[in-house]
Amino acid sequence: MHFFKLFVKRFARHVKLFPRNNPSQLLNRKHLKKYKKNVFLKFLPISTSNKRYYSHKFDYSRDSKSIYKVILGAALSGSLFVYLLRSVKVVPGEYKKGLPDYTIEEVAKHKTRDTRVWVTFHKGVYDITDYLNVHPGGADILMMAAGGPLDPYWEIYTQHLIDSTYVILEKYRIGNLKLSPPTPKKVCYAPPAGLPFDNEPTRDPRLIPVTERPFNGGPKSSLLVEDFHTPNDIFYIRNHLPVPRVSAEDFKLTIDVEGAGSKTFNLDEIKQLPHRTVTITAQCGGLRRQEMTDKLRKDTQGVKWEINGVGNATWTGVALIDALKAAGYNESTHTDLEHLQFTSYHSAGGPYVTGIPIHKVLNPKNNIMLCWEMNGQELTPDHGYPLRIIVPGVIGARWVKQIEKIEVRKEECQSHWHQQLYKYFGPHVTLDNVDYSSLSPVQDLPVMSAILSPSDQETVVISGNKLPVKGFAYSGGGNKIVRVEVSNNKGKTWMPAKLVHTGSDPVPYHFTWALWSCDVPTDGKRCIEIWVKATDSACNVQPENWEHIYNIRGVACTAFHKIRVNLK
Amino acid sequence: MHFFKLFVKRFARHVKLFPRNNPSQLLNRKHLKKYKKNVFLKFLPISTSNKRYYSHKFDYSRDSKSIYKVILGAALSGSLFVYLLRSVKVVPGEYKKGLPDYTIEEVAKHKTRDTRVWVTFHKGVYDITDYLNVHPGGADILMMAAGGPLDPYWEIYTQHLIDSTYVILEKYRIGNLKLSPPTPKKVCYAPPAGLPFDNEPTRDPRLIPVTERPFNGGPKSSLLVEDFHTPNDIFYIRNHLPVPRVSAEDFKLTIDVEGAGSKTFNLDEIKQLPHRTVTITAQCGGLRRQEMTDKLRKDTQGVKWEINGVGNATWTGVALIDALKAAGYNESTHTDLEHLQFTSYHSAGGPYVTGIPIHKVLNPKNNIMLCWEMNGQELTPDHGYPLRIIVPGVIGARWVKQIEKIEVRKEECQSHWHQQLYKYFGPHVTLDNVDYSSLSPVQDLPVMSAILSPSDQETVVISGNKLPVKGFAYSGGGNKIVRVEVSNNKGKTWMPAKLVHTGSDPVPYHFTWALWSCDVPTDGKRCIEIWVKATDSACNVQPENWEHIYNIRGVACTAFHKIRVNLK
Repeated sequence: MHFFKLFVKRFARHVKLFPRNNPSQLLNRKHLKKYKKNVFLKFLPISTSNKRYYSHKFDYSRDSKSIYKVILGAALSGSLFVYLLRSVKVVPGEYKKGLPDYTIEEVAKHKTRDTRVWVTFHKGVYDITDYLNVHPGGADILMMAAGGPLDPYWEIYTQHLIDSTYVILEKYRIGNLKLSPPTPKKVCYAPPAGLPFDNEPTRDPRLIPVTERPFNGGPKSSLLVEDFHTPNDIFYIRNHLPVPRVSAEDFKLTIDVEGAGSKTFNLDEIKQLPHRTVTITAQCGGLRRQEMTDKLRKDTQGVKWEINGVGNATWTGVALIDALKAAGYNESTHTDLEHLQFTSYHSAGGPYVTGIPIHKVLNPKNNIMLCWEMNGQELTPDHGYPLRIIVPGVIGARWVKQIEKIEVRKEECQSHWHQQLYKYFGPHVTLDNVDYSSLSPVQDLPVMSAILSPSDQETVVISGNKLPVKGFAYSGGGNKIVRVEVSNNKGKTWMPAKLVHTGSDPVPYHFTWALWSCDVPTDGKRCIEIWVKATDSACNVQPENWEHIYNIRGVACTAFHKIRVNLK
Repeated sequence: MHFFKLFVKRFARHVKLFPRNNPSQLLNRKHLKKYKKNVFLKFLPISTSNKRYYSHKFDYSRDSKSIYKVILGAALSGSLFVYLLRSVKVVPGEYKKGLPDYTIEEVAKHKTRDTRVWVTFHKGVYDITDYLNVHPGGADILMMAAGGPLDPYWEIYTQHLIDSTYVILEKYRIGNLKLSPPTPKKVCYAPPAGLPFDNEPTRDPRLIPVTERPFNGGPKSSLLVEDFHTPNDIFYIRNHLPVPRVSAEDFKLTIDVEGAGSKTFNLDEIKQLPHRTVTITAQCGGLRRQEMTDKLRKDTQGVKWEINGVGNATWTGVALIDALKAAGYNESTHTDLEHLQFTSYHSAGGPYVTGIPIHKVLNPKNNIMLCWEMNGQELTPDHGYPLRIIVPGVIGARWVKQIEKIEVRKEECQSHWHQQLYKYFGPHVTLDNVDYSSLSPVQDLPVMSAILSPSDQETVVISGNKLPVKGFAYSGGGNKIVRVEVSNNKGKTWMPAKLVHTGSDPVPYHFTWALWSCDVPTDGKRCIEIWVKATDSACNVQPENWEHIYNIRGVACTAFHKIRVNLK
């Protein structure tokens, strides 16, 4: 029996269930009924021979060939679900012994600040009155759930379905929900009125969703190596919220300079400032987060990007510093205003709010801009129509789209997005001991490279004994990629890749990626492991392994990219 | 016999002989007579149990305790010297069969360009006429050896005693020196007239030489952790040549703007520009080169710095851009002049010449300066009296001392110092296939940290079960150190070090080091291995191991610093 338990524990670690639309959400038994076949079964088998392991995804509703593996996996896991579910670190809304029970009717009486604001989630009852004013999406949106269940809202605002939110939620726990009829299930999964994603833009079918709502996704990575400038249709899309729909006619941008008043511009007024068109690479701060999570088998927070959350485009707009000056900002006198705060237009989920330090903005050569064109075309709503910010060399999370307000201020932005989502902690920091105030938010991107073609585990037919390998490399902060190296023998020797496309701007104003290619000798093997690493103009290099850079937020996922390719 | 040969080869790799004054110079038999006891015997024994190895130095003329080890080593190596010497890659001046023999008298006839310029080195005869114009120190200085031996000059200009110079020299080989009496030995080691190091400054005895002539050295590393500002007396000294002695009265700086003429300033005229005093860290581009060389048992070029070639000081001077403008440089019109070239005053060995791109100079916040004061005191000759350049965030090699000429020009500096000494090649590049023109010279420094106290292999008496560990961390390009982590279990877990001193300047204008400390649990062990790594504001991290960053020039030696400490 002891052996059996050990086996169960071990197996539970390697098989997890996810809804197809949101692979970051672990399922419990209740969900299974709802999602039925719409589920990923994820194996993380360990290859003990070489102590490395590989991730395989089987979609049993679609992939008929893998159905037998799935049946086998399901049979094995059948009675083990209890153990499996216990492996989830934080189980929000679980029944807690020793707390009082409340009926739905009792909860419904607590709808205002005067009576205290209560909500439910699964079987939990929470008094969130004290949290209202610090809710990143604002108090108003949260008040929509007052006296009732959070569940239907979080079904839509799926960004809440992460451990760090659960930890916060459980701090406000006051009781258990008494499950007398009518059962909360019926209430839970009805879509809430007035909060739809039904105004979302149409997207190119080549964009593979990482999450559906809000939409995040990018193309098959091999599409990225074709052009130095990534076509707009397949340019990765990163949304923290539903897409705000703003017309060019209605658009207004307010720039507020602390202590010196504010000025509001319409789009034509912004376009009257001096134009510039520049080529700049955009990269998501969570790039390769899925890989870090898989390789270390340790959870990370945030959208689980693979290697396709990156792209390169020309951008047309005006220098942000010109707009700030037009609004009354004066570098010589406003020396105490060291921070910028960017607020997007509100979508159903409220505005997205973050910021950057002002220092780089003051140098126009850093090309921090307000843009309305991307690769010569008008921005689409997914990319920030009608006006967005770009911050070259800095993580995409600061490139606020549908910009409605810019504040020049003394204090750094205090939004949840800014103070929690993108901070680079050390491996010793856990969700239990994290102190978000101990670090500044990530701005500049580190040196990075990845293989975009072929994919990991792909089977490639080659003629001759060379495998063409292609990819990208990029470094933030205005640094340039000076070298990309590839190894076919796990780093024993390295061969230089050819830098096929690089930008021509000089350091420290170099903000474009390098696309590279390398014909890798296969030495007659049927399966080949390929590593890549890049070096930038500041001599910074990528770390070899994941273990020393693990961090709970899953940022700066820069370890050597290592893939296996089967050859035919 | 086969086994014996194998053993000999293996042993020869681990025992090498160096003159004490110049540990970078391998000795041959002839040298041994000269240096007699003034020699290091260097063991690099392999600990096969864990595949790591440690370097121990035994000075048999001084260290009586290790005399027995040395005798043992000498006895073992006795008859193996022939094999040992064969392990040197390039043996310059070795007798070469098939080449004609020339007497000293015959060589002496070739003293001018008309008759071709011949020189000798050891037993080699060389026609260097075609090399005269590309000699980094200039043709004139090289002509002093015309018709005679190079040996005495290279005794003084020891920077030539490296493989890369030997490779160049052997390209000009035309014959062997006929060793009829008088033997060249008598000529070889007489100090040449007119080229002395006899005008060198007096130095603090706490400075430990890495090379004596030219002088390079720094303090015992533990002295560096005491103060955020490193005292001038123990600030590391880096000389490529004998120190030029220039008085403030005679000093002149010429600034030449290509196509727009030049202007010459005396010191008072420079000091009339607006002053600034800033705190900036200086770091040698070859820091930890000895460690890379030792750990990989692979040769690197250049002075073998340990971890003490770094320091932090306040600097007083004027912005270089102000001086350029005063000389007629105009950013708006001189857009094609992208390079600066710095030429130092001539010493006996000629001027030191290198440069930087102009882009960062144009932004006064980068604090690229002409300085006359260091920590509030007048510069000493070793630090560039009366005027030097400082280039924050950039390797020390560009901080030209005793600056005599600055050129704003279209073309990058082509000096040997600039185009060969500090380039960061990949591990696949060797002295045989190196293409110096394939890379730009290193400017910005990568993220780095090291333990300054205790030292590797030191025995420390501790009370309690914590070992106090201290060190520095630094990142170039205006980045800030955001985290230093220490491990006492080879990276299985990491603990954060306390950042005791850091500068307060914001990124991207942060140019000071961080001094850190950490009380490391010793877990009752008698011997403890400690690792340290740093992370900078651009999320760049140090690489774990040396193997993937090996490079022939030994720059960017940034692997995790790992030391062993014995506890009592």
